[in-house]
Amino acid sequence: MEIRALTFDVFGTVVDWRSAIIAELETLAQKKEVQGDWAAFVDEWKAFYRPAMDAVNSGERPWTNVDEIYARALDELLPRYGLTNMRKPEIDHLTHAWCRPHAWPDSAPALHRLKEKFALSTLSNGNFSWLVAIAKHCSLPFDCVLTAENARAYKPDPRVYRCAIEMLGLRPEQILMVACHNYDLAAASSHGMRTAFLPRKEHGGDQTADQAPEHDWDFVVRDLEDLATALSC
Amino acid sequence: MEIRALTFDVFGTVVDWRSAIIAELETLAQKKEVQGDWAAFVDEWKAFYRPAMDAVNSGERPWTNVDEIYARALDELLPRYGLTNMRKPEIDHLTHAWCRPHAWPDSAPALHRLKEKFALSTLSNGNFSWLVAIAKHCSLPFDCVLTAENARAYKPDPRVYRCAIEMLGLRPEQILMVACHNYDLAAASSHGMRTAFLPRKEHGGDQTADQAPEHDWDFVVRDLEDLATALSC
Repeated sequence: MEIRALTFDVFGTVVDWRSAIIAELETLAQKKEVQGDWAAFVDEWKAFYRPAMDAVNSGERPWTNVDEIYARALDELLPRYGLTNMRKPEIDHLTHAWCRPHAWPDSAPALHRLKEKFALSTLSNGNFSWLVAIAKHCSLPFDCVLTAENARAYKPDPRVYRCAIEMLGLRPEQILMVACHNYDLAAASSHGMRTAFLPRKEHGGDQTADQAPEHDWDFVVRDLEDLATALSC
Repeated sequence: MEIRALTFDVFGTVVDWRSAIIAELETLAQKKEVQGDWAAFVDEWKAFYRPAMDAVNSGERPWTNVDEIYARALDELLPRYGLTNMRKPEIDHLTHAWCRPHAWPDSAPALHRLKEKFALSTLSNGNFSWLVAIAKHCSLPFDCVLTAENARAYKPDPRVYRCAIEMLGLRPEQILMVACHNYDLAAASSHGMRTAFLPRKEHGGDQTADQAPEHDWDFVVRDLEDLATALSC
């Protein structure tokens, strides 16, 4: 069974969100004349994400977009880091820093190669609108955008993968899930999708998690250019 | 309020489905050595669409994709036109002729111009997977795909426009609906979206319906290149 479509995890796999948001915070802090450990701020900010999503998946919390999760986190983080003198548009702009990541250097060239042969979709836990914005900001030529919002559940909830398979109108084995997170591939694989793993240092140079495949994934590659080569693109 | 995204009706507005499907039927008929009026076949085929969608919108019929609507129509049409000697893969291939339309000559160049400035989405009654296939077949650089399938209702049902507005994360007046059908723009406008009308001869040279705007739409243009010019792209 031939692969027809590729679904990409985006934060971490396709883009480097952390260094871009740290840079935005540094610029903001300089303007506000506030000192702080902005890498620690970003790591704390990111840490709000999983518990909030798990609460949505379990039904404990109603459907909540990631932008709302991150915006609410700022209510707590900004005062703690001394960023108190912020107007609403400045806070909104900071929340949307998640839409202004840096693409990893291999991402855009590889997607252009892969697009010649496959349908390329996102399959991210980010907002639909954020993914559209990221694709434009980083010039990533996805053919379509699928996110948690389409399924109103977050990866690794089965509803997200089932929704993607249904929307793409393909058999699961015709879809290759591409991610730098083993948990995401494990979930995709359990629905019959094929899997490609690549390591990323999305949490910074000291990251040790997800630097190697934890299962026998269909493809294990160095980066997305390497994946394009493995798929004869 | 500045326009940020454009949502496009696709069948008729961006692509010429009719001439492409007539051509495919002519090739098929020649192979099968069957004579017939293939333009009439296509017009009858298309006529199955609106009643079936209306039945879905009213709740009389459960959610049914357009590909299923068109596939069921073939059960009736093929024998009537003498195309009886057809294998299942040939019938499936014919159903998917809707994914192999011709783009109007202005469509791809105009979308490339518009993409520099706006997020470009489909907003079609076609299957999500068909829209992905059409974008690839016709090299149409949409940023994302939104269809009736996202809302599980068909235009002009309010759910379709509300779903698009929510997914794009914008205010309705930041979204411009582009269509060659007055009914589609009337519905979009009732939700606060902006509107752009262009005439097309999707039903052939004799078409008289939808050749002029029936309301005071925000933009009335000759074609999509003209729209790109009107929007300073």
